[in-house]
Amino acid sequence: MTSKKRIVSGMRPTGALHLGNFHGALKNWINMQDIYDCFFFIADWHALTSDYEDPSHIKEYSRKMMIDWLGAGLSPENGTLFIQSHVPDHAELFLLLSMITPVPWLERNPTYKEQIAELRNKDLSTFGFLGYPILQAADIIIYKAEGVPVGVDQAPHIEITREIARRFNFFYGNVFPEPETILTESAKILGTDRRKMSKSYGNAIFLSDPPETIRKKVATMITDPQRKKRTDPGDPDICNVYSFHQMYSGPDMTAEINQDCRNAAIGCVECKQKMAESLIEALAPIRETTLYYEQHPKIVDDIIARGNKKAAAEASQTLDEVRAALKI
Amino acid sequence: MTSKKRIVSGMRPTGALHLGNFHGALKNWINMQDIYDCFFFIADWHALTSDYEDPSHIKEYSRKMMIDWLGAGLSPENGTLFIQSHVPDHAELFLLLSMITPVPWLERNPTYKEQIAELRNKDLSTFGFLGYPILQAADIIIYKAEGVPVGVDQAPHIEITREIARRFNFFYGNVFPEPETILTESAKILGTDRRKMSKSYGNAIFLSDPPETIRKKVATMITDPQRKKRTDPGDPDICNVYSFHQMYSGPDMTAEINQDCRNAAIGCVECKQKMAESLIEALAPIRETTLYYEQHPKIVDDIIARGNKKAAAEASQTLDEVRAALKI
Repeated sequence: MTSKKRIVSGMRPTGALHLGNFHGALKNWINMQDIYDCFFFIADWHALTSDYEDPSHIKEYSRKMMIDWLGAGLSPENGTLFIQSHVPDHAELFLLLSMITPVPWLERNPTYKEQIAELRNKDLSTFGFLGYPILQAADIIIYKAEGVPVGVDQAPHIEITREIARRFNFFYGNVFPEPETILTESAKILGTDRRKMSKSYGNAIFLSDPPETIRKKVATMITDPQRKKRTDPGDPDICNVYSFHQMYSGPDMTAEINQDCRNAAIGCVECKQKMAESLIEALAPIRETTLYYEQHPKIVDDIIARGNKKAAAEASQTLDEVRAALKI
Repeated sequence: MTSKKRIVSGMRPTGALHLGNFHGALKNWINMQDIYDCFFFIADWHALTSDYEDPSHIKEYSRKMMIDWLGAGLSPENGTLFIQSHVPDHAELFLLLSMITPVPWLERNPTYKEQIAELRNKDLSTFGFLGYPILQAADIIIYKAEGVPVGVDQAPHIEITREIARRFNFFYGNVFPEPETILTESAKILGTDRRKMSKSYGNAIFLSDPPETIRKKVATMITDPQRKKRTDPGDPDICNVYSFHQMYSGPDMTAEINQDCRNAAIGCVECKQKMAESLIEALAPIRETTLYYEQHPKIVDDIIARGNKKAAAEASQTLDEVRAALKI
């Protein structure tokens, strides 16, 4: 029993996590662990909505992601970490919620058309893709979540979840709380090429990258594009390397770098070397813990199995209430 | 182990079965029991696609329908009789098939727009209603059915099932046989008012109606509308009562009735009385068996539980193969 507010959130299994993932969501999750009763899951069924033609990596990616979660500091003692497809009750609730969800609610989902436009090389006109906000609603309300941590861009999904929960309660009686949106701050991390950091762009630094890889990647980073020569003064405000210093080098070194850059007292090569070392130092404990779990697969198996079981027990209890409410 | 071809079919739980249901489908099922390995299920989740606003009768109707099945001669020893919602793997397969099914396949489903037009008093613009051919496909292929007995009007659904099975096999390897359509003959039975027999029209004679009820209902039946007076000759070819004689009174009495009607040697009242007795006699064994099961609810519980278990074991095996094929 816990009196903490329950929250639920998930990530699609994309394999190894990079700094963009970390600062975008995972860091928030880690901070929330002590405040909330957290259910965090790997959304492997959701991965099928866009990757149905070749799902061959999903299993491996799910496991790798769980290891990175553990490495970064999510605690299986503190919260419930599990894999969506191992709790099949999500599918049953998805089916039942399908019955009451009007298609226009899904069509007007702002990210629906956006994604279809964005992922032009994939055929996303599937029923599953149209219905993924319902699966998301099932994922959340099956644990009677009171809150869902999301970035601003995800807020509309939670609105659909709330509407679906409300409609269920209206027809069949009060089973589900309407989860609150817990808006989280998430820094947008740029990759080595200054585009949004993304695995598919090949511009990502991963939490589990060994030091040598980090040094190499950082060495290729684009800095202030206006600074052409070593003797030109630079502008840290528009330099991506500087924003990494801000995150990883501590206030003193960051202030020094800022000044030296503006005075051309430090060159980009040296500045990047310093940043790489700061980053390597900051990631060392994550890398070490990740390595530990990679070398102890049995422990990871156990953590996943325990999380699945804990989640399944909660989900099953809700499903019993759902069936009773539906009188089915 | 059986070498019989496996077939799967389901019925929505509408409660007590009437003669229209019997001649439309159930009689065919009974005849198929010895030839095929039959999986017959009560499609209670499907009932939600149209009755989601008030599902309160579904459970009671499901049970009543199972009792009528048993009464009419479906054998739990010979085939597998079960209730869809008690085999939750159907929902998981529904979700997985959703991922690969293009929405246009569903929109072009001829019965989709038809039903939306027909059931104007219900809001059927739900995701579940749009997706019910996927649920139907899951219901069928989860048992690796080789055939599905259907009337002509249901044939397009089986086509979608075949397409979905084919698409799954194409992406992930050969898991599902494509079920053949087994076209069955089904007499269209008219109700006491000459409209199609239907519970909702209030014109139905139920398999479990007691003799007195049958006599009363038959007495109200509309006969040849042109025969106004007792002395007018009638035309059996357009008389609904006569078509019941053809089904229930045997060749001798039927021939006699035919002649006497044309000669005005028998009146409609007497003709109906004779038909009622034939019908009561034909339904007596069904009524008796039904009554037996109604008085032995524990036996019904056991039959349902056994059927569910048998179905769940088969479904679970298929789901294992599905997960392995998807590598999820």
